[in-house]
Amino acid sequence: MGRVTARTPVVRISGDRVVTRPDTLAVEEPLEMRVGGQVLAVTMRTPGNDVDLVHGFLLSEGVIGTRDDVSVVRYCDGVDETGANTYNVLDIALAPGVPLPDHTTDRNTVVSSACGVCGKTSLDAVRTTTRHPLVGDTTSVTSTVLSAMPVTLRESQRIFERTGGLHAAGLFTATGELLALREDVGRHNAVDKVIGWAITDGRVPLYDTILIVSGRASFELVQKAVMAGIPILGAVSAPSSLAVELAQESGLTLAGFIRGDSMNIYSHPHRVEVTSDSRATEPTVAQRS
Amino acid sequence: MGRVTARTPVVRISGDRVVTRPDTLAVEEPLEMRVGGQVLAVTMRTPGNDVDLVHGFLLSEGVIGTRDDVSVVRYCDGVDETGANTYNVLDIALAPGVPLPDHTTDRNTVVSSACGVCGKTSLDAVRTTTRHPLVGDTTSVTSTVLSAMPVTLRESQRIFERTGGLHAAGLFTATGELLALREDVGRHNAVDKVIGWAITDGRVPLYDTILIVSGRASFELVQKAVMAGIPILGAVSAPSSLAVELAQESGLTLAGFIRGDSMNIYSHPHRVEVTSDSRATEPTVAQRS
Repeated sequence: MGRVTARTPVVRISGDRVVTRPDTLAVEEPLEMRVGGQVLAVTMRTPGNDVDLVHGFLLSEGVIGTRDDVSVVRYCDGVDETGANTYNVLDIALAPGVPLPDHTTDRNTVVSSACGVCGKTSLDAVRTTTRHPLVGDTTSVTSTVLSAMPVTLRESQRIFERTGGLHAAGLFTATGELLALREDVGRHNAVDKVIGWAITDGRVPLYDTILIVSGRASFELVQKAVMAGIPILGAVSAPSSLAVELAQESGLTLAGFIRGDSMNIYSHPHRVEVTSDSRATEPTVAQRS
Repeated sequence: MGRVTARTPVVRISGDRVVTRPDTLAVEEPLEMRVGGQVLAVTMRTPGNDVDLVHGFLLSEGVIGTRDDVSVVRYCDGVDETGANTYNVLDIALAPGVPLPDHTTDRNTVVSSACGVCGKTSLDAVRTTTRHPLVGDTTSVTSTVLSAMPVTLRESQRIFERTGGLHAAGLFTATGELLALREDVGRHNAVDKVIGWAITDGRVPLYDTILIVSGRASFELVQKAVMAGIPILGAVSAPSSLAVELAQESGLTLAGFIRGDSMNIYSHPHRVEVTSDSRATEPTVAQRS
Protein backbone atom coordinates (compact mmCIF):
# COMPACT_ATOMS: atom_id res chain seq x y z
CA MET A 1 0.00 0.00 0.00
CA GLY A 2 1.26 3.48 0.76
CA ARG A 3 0.38 4.51 -2.75
CA VAL A 4 -1.77 7.51 -1.87
CA THR A 5 0.58 9.91 -3.61
CA ALA A 6 2.85 9.63 -6.66
CA ARG A 7 5.66 11.84 -7.96
CA THR A 8 5.86 13.07 -11.53
CA PRO A 9 7.92 15.68 -13.38
CA VAL A 10 5.87 18.73 -14.33
CA VAL A 11 6.53 21.77 -16.51
CA ARG A 12 5.60 24.78 -14.40
CA ILE A 13 4.74 27.92 -16.40
CA SER A 14 4.42 31.17 -14.49
CA GLY A 15 4.16 34.21 -16.75
CA ASP A 16 7.12 33.72 -19.11
CA ARG A 17 9.14 31.68 -16.61
CA VAL A 18 9.31 27.94 -17.24
CA VAL A 19 10.82 25.36 -14.89
CA THR A 20 10.63 21.60 -14.81
CA ARG A 21 10.28 20.18 -11.32
CA PRO A 22 8.82 17.17 -9.54
CA ASP A 23 5.21 17.38 -8.41
CA THR A 24 3.09 15.23 -6.09
CA LEU A 25 -0.16 13.73 -7.37
CA ALA A 26 -3.05 12.01 -5.64
CA VAL A 27 -3.10 8.39 -6.75
CA GLU A 28 -6.24 7.16 -8.53
CA GLU A 29 -6.71 3.43 -9.18
CA PRO A 30 -9.73 1.21 -9.80
CA LEU A 31 -11.07 -1.03 -7.03
CA GLU A 32 -13.18 -4.03 -7.95
CA MET A 33 -15.50 -5.35 -5.23
CA ARG A 34 -16.71 -8.94 -5.56
CA VAL A 35 -19.43 -10.58 -3.49
CA GLY A 36 -19.78 -14.34 -3.81
CA GLY A 37 -17.52 -14.28 -6.86
CA GLN A 38 -19.67 -11.74 -8.70
CA VAL A 39 -18.51 -8.24 -9.48
CA LEU A 40 -20.64 -5.89 -7.39
CA ALA A 41 -18.92 -2.62 -8.28
CA VAL A 42 -15.83 -1.01 -9.71
CA THR A 43 -14.91 2.40 -8.39
CA MET A 44 -11.97 4.71 -9.09
CA ARG A 45 -10.45 5.49 -5.71
CA THR A 46 -7.37 6.56 -3.82
CA PRO A 47 -5.80 3.31 -2.53
CA GLY A 48 -5.86 2.80 1.22
CA ASN A 49 -8.62 2.02 3.73
CA ASP A 50 -10.09 -0.27 1.09
CA VAL A 51 -11.71 -2.58 3.64
CA ASP A 52 -13.43 0.45 5.19
CA LEU A 53 -14.50 1.55 1.72
CA VAL A 54 -16.13 -1.84 1.08
CA HIS A 55 -18.00 -1.78 4.39
CA GLY A 56 -19.28 1.75 3.77
CA PHE A 57 -20.30 0.90 0.23
CA LEU A 58 -22.18 -2.24 1.31
CA LEU A 59 -24.04 -0.29 4.01
CA SER A 60 -24.94 2.49 1.56
CA GLU A 61 -26.30 -0.09 -0.86
CA GLY A 62 -28.41 -1.74 1.82
CA VAL A 63 -26.49 -5.03 1.66
CA ILE A 64 -25.31 -4.95 5.29
CA GLY A 65 -26.48 -3.24 8.48
CA THR A 66 -23.58 -3.88 10.87
CA ARG A 67 -20.09 -5.37 10.81
CA ASP A 68 -21.52 -8.76 11.81
CA ASP A 69 -23.08 -9.04 8.34
CA VAL A 70 -19.61 -9.40 6.80
CA SER A 71 -17.51 -12.54 7.34
CA VAL A 72 -14.35 -11.82 5.41
CA VAL A 73 -12.92 -9.11 3.18
CA ARG A 74 -9.59 -9.92 1.55
CA TYR A 75 -7.53 -8.88 -1.45
CA CYS A 76 -7.69 -11.51 -4.14
CA ASP A 77 -5.56 -12.38 -7.08
CA GLY A 78 -5.70 -9.38 -9.39
CA VAL A 79 -2.21 -9.23 -10.88
CA ASP A 80 -0.55 -6.81 -13.25
CA GLU A 81 1.57 -7.72 -16.29
CA THR A 82 4.52 -8.59 -14.05
CA GLY A 83 2.43 -11.01 -11.98
CA ALA A 84 2.41 -8.76 -8.90
CA ASN A 85 -0.77 -8.32 -6.86
CA THR A 86 -2.37 -5.00 -7.74
CA TYR A 87 -4.33 -4.84 -4.48
CA ASN A 88 -7.19 -3.59 -6.63
CA VAL A 89 -9.60 -6.53 -6.19
CA LEU A 90 -11.39 -7.30 -2.94
CA ASP A 91 -13.29 -10.54 -2.30
CA ILE A 92 -16.16 -10.19 0.15
CA ALA A 93 -17.88 -13.05 1.97
CA LEU A 94 -21.15 -12.17 3.68
CA ALA A 95 -22.13 -13.77 6.97
CA PRO A 96 -24.39 -16.86 6.89
CA GLY A 97 -27.98 -15.78 6.38
CA VAL A 98 -27.11 -12.42 4.79
CA PRO A 99 -28.53 -12.56 1.27
CA LEU A 100 -26.53 -11.58 -1.77
CA PRO A 101 -27.64 -8.23 -3.19
CA ASP A 102 -30.75 -9.15 -5.18
CA HIS A 103 -30.19 -6.32 -7.62
CA THR A 104 -26.76 -7.50 -8.67
CA THR A 105 -27.86 -8.27 -12.19
CA ASP A 106 -29.54 -4.88 -12.52
CA ARG A 107 -26.78 -2.81 -11.02
CA ASN A 108 -23.67 -4.72 -11.95
CA THR A 109 -20.61 -2.52 -11.44
CA VAL A 110 -22.68 0.53 -10.63
CA VAL A 111 -20.63 3.05 -8.67
CA SER A 112 -23.19 5.80 -8.44
CA SER A 113 -26.07 5.45 -6.06
CA ALA A 114 -28.57 6.23 -8.79
CA CYS A 115 -31.14 3.70 -7.72
CA GLY A 116 -33.99 4.43 -10.03
CA VAL A 117 -35.16 6.56 -12.86
CA CYS A 118 -37.82 8.61 -11.24
CA GLY A 119 -36.52 10.77 -8.42
CA LYS A 120 -39.54 9.87 -6.34
CA THR A 121 -38.86 6.17 -6.72
CA SER A 122 -35.26 6.68 -5.66
CA LEU A 123 -36.35 8.50 -2.53
CA ASP A 124 -38.78 5.76 -1.62
CA ALA A 125 -36.15 3.09 -2.16
CA VAL A 126 -33.79 4.75 0.26
CA ARG A 127 -36.43 5.39 2.88
CA THR A 128 -37.62 1.83 2.91
CA THR A 129 -34.20 0.18 2.96
CA THR A 130 -32.43 2.10 5.71
CA ARG A 131 -32.18 0.06 8.89
CA HIS A 132 -31.40 3.11 10.99
CA PRO A 133 -34.27 5.59 10.46
CA LEU A 134 -33.84 9.12 11.77
CA VAL A 135 -36.79 9.25 14.14
CA GLY A 136 -36.58 10.24 17.76
CA ASP A 137 -32.87 11.05 17.91
CA THR A 138 -32.05 14.00 20.14
CA THR A 139 -28.80 15.03 18.47
CA SER A 140 -28.20 18.75 18.28
CA VAL A 141 -25.22 20.99 17.58
CA THR A 142 -24.60 24.68 18.07
CA SER A 143 -24.02 26.80 14.99
CA THR A 144 -20.67 27.86 16.45
CA VAL A 145 -19.43 24.27 16.72
CA LEU A 146 -20.84 23.35 13.31
CA SER A 147 -19.15 26.37 11.71
CA ALA A 148 -15.77 25.25 13.00
CA MET A 149 -15.98 21.71 11.61
CA PRO A 150 -15.02 22.46 7.98
CA VAL A 151 -12.01 24.40 9.29
CA THR A 152 -10.93 21.41 11.37
CA LEU A 153 -11.49 19.13 8.39
CA ARG A 154 -9.39 21.29 6.07
CA GLU A 155 -6.57 21.66 8.59
CA SER A 156 -6.49 17.91 9.13
CA GLN A 157 -6.24 17.00 5.44
CA ARG A 158 -2.73 15.73 4.94
CA ILE A 159 -2.82 14.41 1.40
CA PHE A 160 -4.63 17.47 0.05
CA GLU A 161 -1.81 19.61 1.45
CA ARG A 162 0.62 17.82 -0.82
CA THR A 163 -1.47 17.26 -3.94
CA GLY A 164 -4.31 19.79 -3.91
CA GLY A 165 -6.46 17.06 -5.36
CA LEU A 166 -8.59 15.27 -2.81
CA HIS A 167 -12.08 15.34 -1.39
CA ALA A 168 -12.44 14.87 2.35
CA ALA A 169 -15.12 13.52 4.66
CA GLY A 170 -15.01 13.80 8.44
CA LEU A 171 -17.14 12.30 11.18
CA PHE A 172 -17.56 14.55 14.24
CA THR A 173 -19.21 14.38 17.65
CA ALA A 174 -21.81 17.02 18.45
CA THR A 175 -19.22 18.81 20.56
CA GLY A 176 -16.86 19.13 17.59
CA GLU A 177 -14.44 16.27 18.17
CA LEU A 178 -13.14 14.77 14.92
CA LEU A 179 -13.61 11.00 15.11
CA ALA A 180 -12.37 10.02 11.66
CA LEU A 181 -11.16 11.74 8.50
CA ARG A 182 -10.69 10.16 5.09
CA GLU A 183 -9.50 11.65 1.80
CA ASP A 184 -10.14 10.28 -1.69
CA VAL A 185 -10.20 11.32 -5.34
CA GLY A 186 -13.93 10.47 -5.22
CA ARG A 187 -16.09 12.22 -2.66
CA HIS A 188 -18.44 9.23 -2.37
CA ASN A 189 -15.41 7.07 -1.57
CA ALA A 190 -14.26 9.45 1.16
CA VAL A 191 -17.70 9.14 2.77
CA ASP A 192 -17.78 5.35 2.32
CA LYS A 193 -14.37 5.10 4.02
CA VAL A 194 -15.46 7.17 7.02
CA ILE A 195 -18.72 5.27 7.46
CA GLY A 196 -16.92 1.99 6.87
CA TRP A 197 -14.47 2.84 9.64
CA ALA A 198 -17.44 3.40 11.95
CA ILE A 199 -19.02 0.08 10.94
CA THR A 200 -15.89 -1.95 11.61
CA ASP A 201 -15.52 -0.09 14.91
CA GLY A 202 -19.05 -1.15 15.90
CA ARG A 203 -20.40 2.41 15.98
CA VAL A 204 -23.31 2.15 13.51
CA PRO A 205 -26.03 3.51 13.75
CA LEU A 206 -24.28 6.88 14.01
CA TYR A 207 -27.17 8.77 15.62
CA ASP A 208 -24.94 11.02 17.72
CA THR A 209 -22.57 12.16 14.96
CA ILE A 210 -22.22 14.80 12.26
CA LEU A 211 -20.77 14.16 8.80
CA ILE A 212 -18.87 16.99 7.09
CA VAL A 213 -17.86 16.91 3.41
CA SER A 214 -15.38 19.22 1.70
CA GLY A 215 -17.40 19.91 -1.44
CA ARG A 216 -20.99 19.74 -2.60
CA ALA A 217 -23.83 17.65 -1.21
CA SER A 218 -25.35 15.34 -3.80
CA PHE A 219 -28.26 12.91 -3.52
CA GLU A 220 -25.68 10.16 -3.18
CA LEU A 221 -24.01 11.66 -0.11
CA VAL A 222 -27.32 12.29 1.65
CA GLN A 223 -28.28 8.69 0.90
CA LYS A 224 -25.08 7.40 2.50
CA ALA A 225 -25.66 9.47 5.65
CA VAL A 226 -29.27 8.31 5.91
CA MET A 227 -28.31 4.65 5.51
CA ALA A 228 -25.81 4.99 8.39
CA GLY A 229 -28.22 6.80 10.69
CA ILE A 230 -26.25 10.06 10.64
CA PRO A 231 -28.70 12.88 11.55
CA ILE A 232 -26.69 15.93 10.39
CA LEU A 233 -24.77 16.38 7.12
CA GLY A 234 -22.77 19.55 6.52
CA ALA A 235 -21.18 20.61 3.23
CA VAL A 236 -18.80 23.43 2.37
CA SER A 237 -20.57 24.02 -0.95
CA ALA A 238 -24.04 23.77 -2.47
CA PRO A 239 -26.50 20.88 -2.27
CA SER A 240 -28.47 19.63 -5.28
CA SER A 241 -32.26 19.66 -5.47
CA LEU A 242 -32.52 15.90 -4.98
CA ALA A 243 -30.15 16.02 -2.01
CA VAL A 244 -32.44 18.53 -0.30
CA GLU A 245 -35.56 16.54 -1.19
CA LEU A 246 -34.13 13.31 0.23
CA ALA A 247 -32.92 15.09 3.37
CA GLN A 248 -36.35 16.62 3.94
CA GLU A 249 -38.14 13.31 3.50
CA SER A 250 -35.64 11.28 5.54
CA GLY A 251 -35.50 13.51 8.60
CA LEU A 252 -31.86 14.48 8.02
CA THR A 253 -30.58 17.98 8.82
CA LEU A 254 -28.72 19.24 5.74
CA ALA A 255 -26.43 22.28 6.02
CA GLY A 256 -24.65 23.83 3.04
CA PHE A 257 -22.30 26.72 2.33
CA ILE A 258 -20.76 26.45 5.82
CA ARG A 259 -18.28 29.31 5.56
CA GLY A 260 -17.04 31.57 8.33
CA ASP A 261 -19.92 31.93 10.77
CA SER A 262 -22.59 31.53 8.08
CA MET A 263 -24.47 28.55 6.72
CA ASN A 264 -27.72 27.54 5.03
CA ILE A 265 -29.97 24.90 6.62
CA TYR A 266 -32.04 23.14 3.97
CA SER A 267 -33.98 20.66 6.11
CA HIS A 268 -34.92 19.93 9.71
CA PRO A 269 -33.22 22.98 11.28
CA HIS A 270 -34.33 21.97 14.80
CA ARG A 271 -31.01 20.16 15.34
CA VAL A 272 -28.97 23.36 14.93
CA GLU A 273 -28.98 25.67 17.93
CA VAL A 274 -28.05 29.20 16.87
CA THR A 275 -25.27 30.60 19.01
CA SER A 276 -22.97 33.52 18.61
CA ASP A 277 -19.23 33.20 19.07
CA SER A 278 -17.80 36.70 19.47
CA ARG A 279 -14.48 35.56 18.06
CA ALA A 280 -16.17 34.44 14.87
CA THR A 281 -18.79 37.15 14.41
CA GLU A 282 -16.95 40.26 15.60
CA PRO A 283 -13.77 41.17 13.79
CA THR A 284 -11.15 42.64 16.09
CA VAL A 285 -10.40 46.34 15.94
CA ALA A 286 -7.09 45.59 14.27
CA GLN A 287 -8.84 43.67 11.49
CA ARG A 288 -11.42 46.37 10.96
CA SER A 289 -8.91 49.13 10.31
CA MET B 1 -37.60 20.76 -19.52
CA GLY B 2 -36.36 23.98 -17.99
CA ARG B 3 -35.75 22.16 -14.76
CA VAL B 4 -32.11 23.12 -14.33
CA THR B 5 -32.82 25.05 -11.15
CA ALA B 6 -35.34 24.67 -8.34
CA ARG B 7 -36.44 26.98 -5.53
CA THR B 8 -36.56 25.94 -1.89
CA PRO B 9 -36.97 27.76 1.44
CA VAL B 10 -33.72 27.84 3.41
CA VAL B 11 -32.83 28.89 6.96
CA ARG B 12 -29.87 31.24 6.64
CA ILE B 13 -27.71 31.54 9.76
CA SER B 14 -25.10 34.28 9.87
CA GLY B 15 -23.57 34.73 13.31
CA ASP B 16 -26.60 34.97 15.58
CA ARG B 17 -28.87 36.30 12.84
CA VAL B 18 -31.40 33.85 11.40
CA VAL B 19 -33.63 34.46 8.38
CA THR B 20 -35.77 32.17 6.27
CA ARG B 21 -35.64 32.96 2.60
CA PRO B 22 -35.98 31.21 -0.76
CA ASP B 23 -32.83 29.77 -2.31
CA THR B 24 -32.04 28.43 -5.78
CA LEU B 25 -30.69 24.89 -6.17
CA ALA B 26 -29.15 23.04 -9.09
CA VAL B 27 -31.52 20.27 -10.11
CA GLU B 28 -30.20 16.70 -9.93
CA GLU B 29 -32.21 13.85 -11.45
CA PRO B 30 -31.36 10.37 -12.73
CA LEU B 31 -31.13 9.70 -16.48
CA GLU B 32 -31.50 6.14 -17.74
CA MET B 33 -29.97 5.39 -21.15
CA ARG B 34 -31.28 2.37 -23.04
CA VAL B 35 -29.75 0.84 -26.16
CA GLY B 36 -31.82 -1.78 -27.96
CA GLY B 37 -34.14 -1.99 -24.97
CA GLN B 38 -31.32 -2.77 -22.54
CA VAL B 39 -30.25 -0.39 -19.79
CA LEU B 40 -26.78 0.83 -20.70
CA ALA B 41 -26.30 3.32 -17.88
CA VAL B 42 -27.99 5.41 -15.22
CA THR B 43 -26.37 8.69 -14.31
CA MET B 44 -27.37 11.46 -11.91
CA ARG B 45 -27.38 14.64 -13.98
CA THR B 46 -28.74 18.15 -14.36
CA PRO B 47 -31.66 17.84 -16.82
CA GLY B 48 -31.18 19.49 -20.20
CA ASN B 49 -29.01 18.68 -23.23
CA ASP B 50 -29.79 15.03 -22.58
CA VAL B 51 -29.41 14.03 -26.22
CA ASP B 52 -25.96 15.61 -26.24
CA LEU B 53 -25.16 13.77 -23.01
CA VAL B 54 -26.08 10.45 -24.59
CA HIS B 55 -23.95 11.10 -27.68
CA GLY B 56 -20.95 12.09 -25.56
CA PHE B 57 -21.39 9.10 -23.28
CA LEU B 58 -21.61 6.67 -26.23
CA LEU B 59 -18.47 8.13 -27.80
CA SER B 60 -16.58 7.95 -24.48
CA GLU B 61 -17.58 4.31 -24.13
CA GLY B 62 -16.42 3.47 -27.65
CA VAL B 63 -19.92 2.58 -28.86
CA ILE B 64 -20.05 5.27 -31.58
CA GLY B 65 -17.47 7.26 -33.54
CA THR B 66 -19.61 9.91 -35.26
CA ARG B 67 -23.22 11.10 -35.31
CA ASP B 68 -23.96 8.75 -38.20
CA ASP B 69 -23.63 5.81 -35.82
CA VAL B 70 -26.83 6.88 -34.05
CA SER B 71 -30.25 6.57 -35.72
CA VAL B 72 -32.64 7.89 -33.11
CA VAL B 73 -32.53 9.20 -29.55
CA ARG B 74 -35.91 9.86 -27.98
CA TYR B 75 -37.48 10.13 -24.55
CA CYS B 76 -39.50 7.08 -23.74
CA ASP B 77 -42.27 6.30 -21.34
CA GLY B 78 -40.82 6.79 -17.89
CA VAL B 79 -43.71 8.21 -15.89
CA ASP B 80 -44.03 9.39 -12.31
CA GLU B 81 -46.81 8.57 -9.86
CA THR B 82 -49.14 11.04 -11.60
CA GLY B 83 -48.58 9.42 -15.00
CA ALA B 84 -46.57 12.36 -16.34
CA ASN B 85 -43.45 11.74 -18.43
CA THR B 86 -40.38 12.26 -16.25
CA TYR B 87 -38.10 12.88 -19.26
CA ASN B 88 -35.58 10.75 -17.40
CA VAL B 89 -35.42 7.77 -19.79
CA LEU B 90 -33.83 7.95 -23.26
CA ASP B 91 -34.21 5.22 -25.87
CA ILE B 92 -31.31 4.98 -28.28
CA ALA B 93 -31.34 3.21 -31.65
CA LEU B 94 -27.94 2.66 -33.23
CA ALA B 95 -27.49 2.86 -37.00
CA PRO B 96 -27.63 -0.37 -39.02
CA GLY B 97 -24.30 -2.18 -38.77
CA VAL B 98 -23.27 -0.52 -35.50
CA PRO B 99 -22.98 -3.34 -32.96
CA LEU B 100 -24.55 -3.14 -29.54
CA PRO B 101 -21.95 -2.62 -26.82
CA ASP B 102 -20.51 -6.11 -26.32
CA HIS B 103 -19.72 -5.39 -22.69
CA THR B 104 -23.29 -4.53 -21.76
CA THR B 105 -23.64 -7.53 -19.50
CA ASP B 106 -20.36 -6.72 -17.78
CA ARG B 107 -20.93 -3.03 -17.34
CA ASN B 108 -24.66 -2.75 -16.92
CA THR B 109 -25.58 0.67 -15.58
CA VAL B 110 -21.97 1.68 -15.07
CA VAL B 111 -21.63 5.43 -14.88
CA SER B 112 -17.94 5.63 -14.17
CA SER B 113 -15.49 4.97 -16.94
CA ALA B 114 -13.59 2.52 -14.80
CA CYS B 115 -12.95 -0.02 -17.51
CA GLY B 116 -10.75 -2.51 -15.77
CA VAL B 117 -9.15 -3.43 -12.54
CA CYS B 118 -5.53 -2.95 -13.32
CA GLY B 119 -4.65 0.61 -14.26
CA LYS B 120 -2.48 -0.69 -17.04
CA THR B 121 -5.34 -2.67 -18.52
CA SER B 122 -7.57 0.39 -18.42
CA LEU B 123 -5.00 2.45 -20.26
CA ASP B 124 -4.59 -0.19 -22.93
CA ALA B 125 -8.34 -0.46 -23.38
CA VAL B 126 -8.67 3.26 -24.00
CA ARG B 127 -5.69 3.42 -26.34
CA THR B 128 -6.96 0.60 -28.48
CA THR B 129 -10.57 1.72 -28.72
CA THR B 130 -10.22 5.40 -29.61
CA ARG B 131 -11.02 6.02 -33.24
CA HIS B 132 -9.35 9.41 -33.19
CA PRO B 133 -5.75 8.89 -32.03
CA LEU B 134 -3.68 11.95 -31.14
CA VAL B 135 -0.87 11.50 -33.64
CA GLY B 136 0.32 14.12 -36.07
CA ASP B 137 -2.02 16.91 -35.00
CA THR B 138 -0.43 20.35 -35.08
CA THR B 139 -2.65 22.04 -32.52
CA SER B 140 -0.91 24.53 -30.26
CA VAL B 141 -1.99 27.29 -27.91
CA THR B 142 -0.14 30.13 -26.24
CA SER B 143 0.08 30.09 -22.46
CA THR B 144 -1.58 33.52 -22.42
CA VAL B 145 -4.65 32.28 -24.30
CA LEU B 146 -4.79 29.06 -22.27
CA SER B 147 -4.60 31.03 -19.01
CA ALA B 148 -7.61 33.10 -20.01
CA MET B 149 -9.88 30.12 -20.76
CA PRO B 150 -10.88 29.23 -17.17
CA VAL B 151 -11.77 32.91 -16.64
CA THR B 152 -13.99 32.88 -19.72
CA LEU B 153 -15.54 29.60 -18.58
CA ARG B 154 -16.31 30.94 -15.11
CA GLU B 155 -17.74 34.19 -16.42
CA SER B 156 -19.98 32.29 -18.83
CA GLN B 157 -21.46 29.95 -16.22
CA ARG B 158 -25.03 31.06 -15.77
CA ILE B 159 -26.48 28.34 -13.56
CA PHE B 160 -23.49 28.36 -11.20
CA GLU B 161 -24.08 32.05 -10.65
CA ARG B 162 -27.51 31.27 -9.26
CA THR B 163 -26.86 28.02 -7.40
CA GLY B 164 -23.14 27.84 -6.65
CA GLY B 165 -23.41 24.15 -7.34
CA LEU B 166 -22.34 23.13 -10.81
CA HIS B 167 -19.33 21.81 -12.64
CA ALA B 168 -18.58 23.28 -16.04
CA ALA B 169 -16.86 22.10 -19.21
CA GLY B 170 -16.02 24.34 -22.15
CA LEU B 171 -14.74 23.61 -25.63
CA PHE B 172 -12.45 26.31 -27.05
CA THR B 173 -10.59 27.01 -30.27
CA ALA B 174 -6.83 27.44 -30.04
CA THR B 175 -7.31 31.20 -30.33
CA GLY B 176 -9.53 31.25 -27.25
CA GLU B 177 -13.02 31.31 -28.75
CA LEU B 178 -15.60 29.47 -26.61
CA LEU B 179 -17.46 27.04 -28.87
CA ALA B 180 -19.70 25.38 -26.28
CA LEU B 181 -20.24 25.47 -22.52
CA ARG B 182 -22.24 22.99 -20.45
CA GLU B 183 -22.91 22.86 -16.70
CA ASP B 184 -23.94 19.81 -14.69
CA VAL B 185 -23.99 18.46 -11.14
CA GLY B 186 -21.59 15.78 -12.46
CA ARG B 187 -18.36 16.86 -14.06
CA HIS B 188 -18.31 13.81 -16.35
CA ASN B 189 -21.80 14.77 -17.54
CA ALA B 190 -20.69 18.33 -18.31
CA VAL B 191 -17.90 16.92 -20.49
CA ASP B 192 -20.22 14.39 -22.16
CA LYS B 193 -22.66 17.19 -23.00
CA VAL B 194 -19.96 19.36 -24.58
CA ILE B 195 -18.51 16.50 -26.60
CA GLY B 196 -22.01 15.31 -27.51
CA TRP B 197 -22.81 18.78 -28.85
CA ALA B 198 -19.73 18.54 -31.04
CA ILE B 199 -20.72 15.06 -32.28
CA THR B 200 -24.22 16.11 -33.27
CA ASP B 201 -22.73 19.19 -34.94
CA GLY B 202 -20.44 16.95 -37.04
CA ARG B 203 -17.24 18.29 -35.48
CA VAL B 204 -15.65 15.08 -34.16
CA PRO B 205 -12.70 14.37 -34.18
CA LEU B 206 -11.95 17.55 -32.27
CA TYR B 207 -8.26 17.79 -33.20
CA ASP B 208 -8.19 21.59 -33.26
CA THR B 209 -9.88 22.24 -29.91
CA ILE B 210 -9.09 22.60 -26.21
CA LEU B 211 -11.30 21.26 -23.42
CA ILE B 212 -11.39 23.18 -20.13
CA VAL B 213 -12.96 21.80 -16.93
CA SER B 214 -13.80 23.76 -13.80
CA GLY B 215 -12.48 21.27 -11.25
CA ARG B 216 -10.04 18.41 -11.10
CA ALA B 217 -8.82 16.19 -13.92
CA SER B 218 -9.57 12.51 -13.32
CA PHE B 219 -8.75 9.46 -15.43
CA GLU B 220 -12.33 9.55 -16.65
CA LEU B 221 -12.10 13.08 -18.05
CA VAL B 222 -8.80 12.39 -19.83
CA GLN B 223 -10.39 9.27 -21.31
CA LYS B 224 -13.32 11.29 -22.67
CA ALA B 225 -10.98 13.84 -24.28
CA VAL B 226 -8.86 11.11 -25.84
CA MET B 227 -11.89 9.30 -27.25
CA ALA B 228 -13.04 12.54 -28.94
CA GLY B 229 -9.62 13.39 -30.38
CA ILE B 230 -9.18 16.48 -28.19
CA PRO B 231 -5.42 17.16 -27.94
CA ILE B 232 -5.35 19.58 -24.97
CA LEU B 233 -7.20 19.27 -21.66
CA GLY B 234 -6.96 22.04 -19.08
CA ALA B 235 -8.19 21.90 -15.48
CA VAL B 236 -8.49 24.55 -12.80
CA SER B 237 -7.45 22.08 -10.11
CA ALA B 238 -5.21 19.04 -9.69
CA PRO B 239 -5.03 15.94 -11.88
CA SER B 240 -4.87 12.41 -10.47
CA SER B 241 -1.96 10.04 -11.05
CA LEU B 242 -3.94 7.89 -13.49
CA ALA B 243 -5.10 10.98 -15.40
CA VAL B 244 -1.47 11.98 -15.95
CA GLU B 245 -0.46 8.45 -16.89
CA LEU B 246 -3.22 8.14 -19.48
CA ALA B 247 -2.44 11.60 -20.88
CA GLN B 248 1.24 10.74 -21.23
CA GLU B 249 0.53 7.45 -22.98
CA SER B 250 -2.22 8.83 -25.23
CA GLY B 251 -0.37 11.87 -26.55
CA LEU B 252 -2.70 14.35 -24.82
CA THR B 253 -1.42 17.62 -23.37
CA LEU B 254 -2.71 17.85 -19.79
CA ALA B 255 -2.58 21.20 -17.96
CA GLY B 256 -3.62 21.62 -14.33
CA PHE B 257 -3.82 24.38 -11.74
CA ILE B 258 -4.49 27.00 -14.44
CA ARG B 259 -4.73 30.06 -12.21
CA GLY B 260 -3.80 33.63 -13.02
CA ASP B 261 -0.84 33.41 -15.42
CA SER B 262 0.44 30.13 -13.96
CA MET B 263 -0.17 26.49 -14.79
CA ASN B 264 1.39 23.03 -14.61
CA ILE B 265 1.85 20.95 -17.76
CA TYR B 266 1.86 17.24 -16.92
CA SER B 267 2.27 15.73 -20.39
CA HIS B 268 3.28 16.63 -23.94
CA PRO B 269 4.12 20.30 -23.27
CA HIS B 270 5.08 20.90 -26.91
CA ARG B 271 1.53 22.11 -27.68
CA VAL B 272 1.80 25.02 -25.22
CA GLU B 273 3.81 28.00 -26.46
CA VAL B 274 5.02 30.09 -23.54
CA THR B 275 4.15 33.74 -24.00
CA SER B 276 4.01 36.67 -21.64
CA ASP B 277 1.03 38.98 -21.48
CA SER B 278 2.04 42.12 -19.64
CA ARG B 279 -1.56 42.69 -18.55
CA ALA B 280 -1.63 39.36 -16.82
CA THR B 281 1.87 39.23 -15.35
CA GLU B 282 2.42 42.86 -14.32
CA PRO B 283 0.01 44.34 -11.81
CA THR B 284 -0.74 47.98 -12.46
CA VAL B 285 0.80 50.65 -10.27
CA ALA B 286 -2.54 51.28 -8.62
CA GLN B 287 -2.85 47.62 -7.65
CA ARG B 288 0.68 47.50 -6.29
CA SER B 289 0.21 50.32 -3.86
